Amino acid sequence: MTTLDVRPVFYIVGALVTIIAAAMLAPMAVDISAGNPDWVVFATSAALTVFFGVLMMLMNRTDTVVLNLRQTFLLTSVAWVVVCAFSALPFMLSRLSLSAADAFFEAMSGLTTTGSTVIVGLDTLEPGLLLWRSLLQWLGGVGIIAMGIAILPFLRVGGMQLFRSESSDRSDKVVPRASDLAVAVAWIYMILTLACTAALALAGMNLFDAVNHAMTAVSTGGFSTSDASVGGWKSASIEWILIVFMMAGGMPLVRFVSLARGDVGPIWRDTQIRWFVGFLVVVSAALAVWVNQALDLPLLESFRLSAFNVVSVVTTTGYASGDYSLWGPPAVVAFLILTMVGGCTGSTAGGLKIFRFEVLFMVLRVQLHRLYMPHRVLPLRYNDKPVDADAMVSVMSFGFVYVASIFIVALALGAFGLDMITAVSGAATALGNVGPGLGQIIGPAGNFQPIPEAAKWVLSLAMLLGRLEFFTVLVLFNRQFWRQ
Amino acid sequence: MTTLDVRPVFYIVGALVTIIAAAMLAPMAVDISAGNPDWVVFATSAALTVFFGVLMMLMNRTDTVVLNLRQTFLLTSVAWVVVCAFSALPFMLSRLSLSAADAFFEAMSGLTTTGSTVIVGLDTLEPGLLLWRSLLQWLGGVGIIAMGIAILPFLRVGGMQLFRSESSDRSDKVVPRASDLAVAVAWIYMILTLACTAALALAGMNLFDAVNHAMTAVSTGGFSTSDASVGGWKSASIEWILIVFMMAGGMPLVRFVSLARGDVGPIWRDTQIRWFVGFLVVVSAALAVWVNQALDLPLLESFRLSAFNVVSVVTTTGYASGDYSLWGPPAVVAFLILTMVGGCTGSTAGGLKIFRFEVLFMVLRVQLHRLYMPHRVLPLRYNDKPVDADAMVSVMSFGFVYVASIFIVALALGAFGLDMITAVSGAATALGNVGPGLGQIIGPAGNFQPIPEAAKWVLSLAMLLGRLEFFTVLVLFNRQFWRQ
Repeated sequence: MTTLDVRPVFYIVGALVTIIAAAMLAPMAVDISAGNPDWVVFATSAALTVFFGVLMMLMNRTDTVVLNLRQTFLLTSVAWVVVCAFSALPFMLSRLSLSAADAFFEAMSGLTTTGSTVIVGLDTLEPGLLLWRSLLQWLGGVGIIAMGIAILPFLRVGGMQLFRSESSDRSDKVVPRASDLAVAVAWIYMILTLACTAALALAGMNLFDAVNHAMTAVSTGGFSTSDASVGGWKSASIEWILIVFMMAGGMPLVRFVSLARGDVGPIWRDTQIRWFVGFLVVVSAALAVWVNQALDLPLLESFRLSAFNVVSVVTTTGYASGDYSLWGPPAVVAFLILTMVGGCTGSTAGGLKIFRFEVLFMVLRVQLHRLYMPHRVLPLRYNDKPVDADAMVSVMSFGFVYVASIFIVALALGAFGLDMITAVSGAATALGNVGPGLGQIIGPAGNFQPIPEAAKWVLSLAMLLGRLEFFTVLVLFNRQFWRQ
Repeated sequence: MTTLDVRPVFYIVGALVTIIAAAMLAPMAVDISAGNPDWVVFATSAALTVFFGVLMMLMNRTDTVVLNLRQTFLLTSVAWVVVCAFSALPFMLSRLSLSAADAFFEAMSGLTTTGSTVIVGLDTLEPGLLLWRSLLQWLGGVGIIAMGIAILPFLRVGGMQLFRSESSDRSDKVVPRASDLAVAVAWIYMILTLACTAALALAGMNLFDAVNHAMTAVSTGGFSTSDASVGGWKSASIEWILIVFMMAGGMPLVRFVSLARGDVGPIWRDTQIRWFVGFLVVVSAALAVWVNQALDLPLLESFRLSAFNVVSVVTTTGYASGDYSLWGPPAVVAFLILTMVGGCTGSTAGGLKIFRFEVLFMVLRVQLHRLYMPHRVLPLRYNDKPVDADAMVSVMSFGFVYVASIFIVALALGAFGLDMITAVSGAATALGNVGPGLGQIIGPAGNFQPIPEAAKWVLSLAMLLGRLEFFTVLVLFNRQFWRQ
């Protein structure tokens, strides 16, 4: 193995920190134009951030910034933590003067597009801070998509090698194609955001709220500009619009590139999208029938209520439109399960992700057949690629680490005094980057403000772990990783 | 594939039913000697049972009773269900006159050595019925050990092929050795039961209670003769004795055969036993410290309380000595996790089982190394046997089906009106064949009586699924299984 040279890693981190400093100018501008003294907060934060960002770049200049495998692992974790720390500055320096734990939690929840919040009083918050929260999710979303297309398949994390040939091979021939693709996906992301803004504005939201919700819907983030979340608007058309754009945000965005070129084939043939949409429709319909019976609501309203919350949780967005904790026991268990499912790979959604369920079900089918037909060989294919034993074990290891992490995080949260439902659902919602948990405190009608600081640090770490698909972080704790 | 001839299957089931009829004579004798009119219940049940058992044997006589793979799968599921149905008769016919759901639940909980009960008023129950409950667990334990040594490795269920060469190869050379081993293990089981009875009697239990608790401790069943379970005796020495015998019951009994021959090696070198004992010691100690702090009890008493309940849950016995639901949130989350762990393969314990965790951790270690050293080949070995991709995927599939089943069963229980904690812990305790759940209703201080009948059927099915290691039952739902 080659020496682990950390300079190119910190050079890139410095560049990312500088970008975040530039992003702080947007909320600053909004606060200035609103005649709000809060713009100073963003000016100060931007100055501090750009200083350290440029310093990091200068101190770590190298001739080339081509990363090897271990450097890429290191970059992924370090970049996320450092960017998050600087992104937390405005929350600490503002009138809210959040504690370090709260500010880091809010920034992490933003960048990982989780959407859990510790801030109460969103409806009267300065527009700069509101925009900053949405912007963190929107930019975090860009980072997640880039990571999903270019980095994770290369790192072979959790079965992501199955998405390798498509765009992430590092051979010279494919790289220009990959960067073309990245630009195309960035356009799609932009267009979806603009389309969502326009639709929300037409449906009666004011432009500022529409921009913010568009940014947090397409990035499946879920921050809102109101304490009551989307439920506060009490508008069926706004909810339907968000259902559509949350679903779009939960799909592999590369597929929209072909769609934009007029080719419906790839989006139609993608089994991940089929399973995703099919699952959402079936679960929404089933819960709608339950809501219709249990809450005695009209069927269409039941379906909207059910679809909005199911889509919000499965795409790991986390908007709320009413408290589904009150829908009765089977709905509560269902939402605990849904919190773990997640959207498609190649999107901004978190969770276990649909393709892993596809692979798991394929493996189980074959396992069952092989039990009574031990000599039959049944080859597995996914995305027209053979699923070898390595990919299978990779996907299944991911599933095991995911479930084990929920319990370990829940145990830690329990030790910091949270009751069992809060602890388990809090662990699941943070690791899945969903947003709301279950129970009185952190349920869809609640807020993460009241929980102890130690628990907030644990949850911040959990959001990071889930976002980086576990193994990316876990390798760093391997002593051999650091040896030459 | 050969034709699926069901006659030898039902011939063996008939033989097993006849054995159960014979077993009913024991509680009958106890009731007669106690001058209790309840003996008629057992006489009637035995008559009915022997009639159908012999009828099944006569109707399905064949020349040979050598089973092929599919017949063995069918036998395993059918035998358990049919034997359970006949074992439920005394509960329905007795003064308790339990409903079909209750009686089947109690019998299933007995035979699968789960230990959940729907009967309130154990302290005043007729001795025949008490003995019948303990006997079901003791006989169920024999069935489980036989299944674990001879059938499951042959069926390659959930990674059990790793235990294949030891005693379950069907080559002519090994079969006599396997049946010798079965006899030796049966002796061990008997000796452990007698030793436990003697120890409990010396510690002050009356002989009847001692016999019953010995049978339900060694079989890791957990039925007691008192509503307060073992806690009712308020005796430290009784609790320590049961800790020892529950642990023995959770270990692979074949290892005691070598021990009885004077060879300590095999029991000392068995990694499964090391992990099992190590895990129990560490978790008991950690929880003892917590109990010491949270409940303000003396350290030694904290350790006994902690060890008794940890051993009881991890060995999937399910005795209670005080309500651990009241130990605070981290303890409750811990017991939810412990409910899934399980004991060693080759014992009467249920759950995920220690060897699967060993394989999972080996796989994860290799996965992590291979992420940054993709070209290194790291072979895995377990029990001096290579763990190939098939065994890995087998073990991991088991883990996935286990977790998925907990959620599916919890969803069903939720739909029948159980709150989330009862539903999730009920699913986990039934699938793991543990006994108590969490929460007010089915917690260690509770009883399964108040839950709806439909939920009891679901739980009975869950106990069966867990006991037969899922895949044994699931193959039967595969259409191709039934084709010729």
